[in-house]
Amino acid sequence: MSLLIVGSIALDTVKTPVEEHSDLLGGSASYAAAAASYFSPVKLVGVVGSDFPKSEFDFWKSRKIDTAGVQQVEGKTFRWSGEYAWDMNTRETRSTELNVFEKFEPELPPAYRETDFALLANIAPALQMNVLKQIQRPRFVVADTMNLWIETTRKDLDALLPNVDLLILNDSEAREMVKETSLIKAGRRIRESGPRYVAIKKGEHGALLFGEDEFFSCGAYPLEDIHDPTGAGDTFAGGMAGYLASTVRKVTFTDLRKAMIYGSVLASFCVEAFSLDRLRNLTMEQINERYETFKLMSQFEGAE
Amino acid sequence: MSLLIVGSIALDTVKTPVEEHSDLLGGSASYAAAAASYFSPVKLVGVVGSDFPKSEFDFWKSRKIDTAGVQQVEGKTFRWSGEYAWDMNTRETRSTELNVFEKFEPELPPAYRETDFALLANIAPALQMNVLKQIQRPRFVVADTMNLWIETTRKDLDALLPNVDLLILNDSEAREMVKETSLIKAGRRIRESGPRYVAIKKGEHGALLFGEDEFFSCGAYPLEDIHDPTGAGDTFAGGMAGYLASTVRKVTFTDLRKAMIYGSVLASFCVEAFSLDRLRNLTMEQINERYETFKLMSQFEGAE
Repeated sequence: MSLLIVGSIALDTVKTPVEEHSDLLGGSASYAAAAASYFSPVKLVGVVGSDFPKSEFDFWKSRKIDTAGVQQVEGKTFRWSGEYAWDMNTRETRSTELNVFEKFEPELPPAYRETDFALLANIAPALQMNVLKQIQRPRFVVADTMNLWIETTRKDLDALLPNVDLLILNDSEAREMVKETSLIKAGRRIRESGPRYVAIKKGEHGALLFGEDEFFSCGAYPLEDIHDPTGAGDTFAGGMAGYLASTVRKVTFTDLRKAMIYGSVLASFCVEAFSLDRLRNLTMEQINERYETFKLMSQFEGAE
Repeated sequence: MSLLIVGSIALDTVKTPVEEHSDLLGGSASYAAAAASYFSPVKLVGVVGSDFPKSEFDFWKSRKIDTAGVQQVEGKTFRWSGEYAWDMNTRETRSTELNVFEKFEPELPPAYRETDFALLANIAPALQMNVLKQIQRPRFVVADTMNLWIETTRKDLDALLPNVDLLILNDSEAREMVKETSLIKAGRRIRESGPRYVAIKKGEHGALLFGEDEFFSCGAYPLEDIHDPTGAGDTFAGGMAGYLASTVRKVTFTDLRKAMIYGSVLASFCVEAFSLDRLRNLTMEQINERYETFKLMSQFEGAE
């Protein structure tokens, strides 16, 4: 089934201790859509400026990503620039220019309104809610968020949560959201505030998934070299939502477990190259090979 | 088969944000022996002073821990005192009094010299080596270490490593040992320096296990409340080594996977109470119940 994805579409400038590249495709929706496209047809919602490269529309077309919901307007595309510390674990934002994103008002094309699955990738919760209201009875809604919205638009976020089936956030965001050091307590408390399921991303330490009486924990794919961590979290969310949208029956906790592994697999590819370059032409064989590695590295019964 | 354990035996004073207790049984060998005793008969090696409570010898006897190798000498028992920060993740050592431990020279009783399995719990690597030399052809040697030895007696540690089958250390120690931020790179590089297998403990994030071409990753048991983290790492090592000593054939990577889960299970009990109180009277049913929880929380195929 198809998956509607709304989020930011950006042109990023990224500096790591060894390389720097400018005006690369970025933004939460770009990463998520590329990742999800390996599992489900994607309907993309976002805004770009008149400077946005046509070649990226061609890329989306090649991945069967529907761009009827991407508005191209006069002005410059949203731009973000960041620099990573030597250990690649911390980064500093050098600049954020909202540009055409500042006045973005998502309006879904009629064909988008009956989508069964929706991923509200990381943007302001008011925009996420705006899009959600335009969809008729979605079967499953995934939302990603970040510390900025927890700190500045908490009311909007709280209003969104009861409409979300799966909330995805990272460890520091989870701790901040409920003022709780234990991630186990944090995950359970966030779940009680609305979303049916909560996934906490822990970077190199993997991810945790909380259901009502269910819990799942997975490690990260054992990568030695990371070239650009940008978008790993958006890719994780896209991989998860894309896999979920490919299931046919009611989403079960087992589907969510597998989705989390696929999200982790896609994120592991994402960080191996700058921007979303590594996500442009993966094969299902490559994806499934890493999925099998996850099986091997996490099973302890019958593993001989 | 029986497991020889050498390490420190201490009387600890521990302060957490909510409680403080004095003169509790502590030390790496005490935690490790209690944990291992659920799987294998233990032969304990260490030293205590004339002030050491007889009741703890009774406890060891009740757990079938052989104390023929525990010297009781004139003077005070090794004492450690520490205080945990509000988040229970960081601690400060308030005092360390070596006392009788300062002149400790391990001498194995004859019945100890043919032990098949040995756990060199956390003490100075020169002492670990001393004990190892007294054992005739051990089948499998597990060693634990800490940042102090990496920083102050690195030569001794490097000399020990090629004699070790499984080295256990925590994430910051692994990073420090090979000056490497990536834990995946660190684990592989430490393995190349001698030990056949390396286990990296990551606290609330679980643990990683490295073999020549093999890799295993597990999460931590999802605990909400931690009362005293002291000894969790020693308990993990004891649980791992104890389970390994209970296997009858040549140790395989699958045995090591299961051992790591049992180590994690025992550590999860350890932190639920002060000192090693929670390890005094567990049942195999309680242990296996948590082992099953690990299965449920980590499998993503056939989990329905």
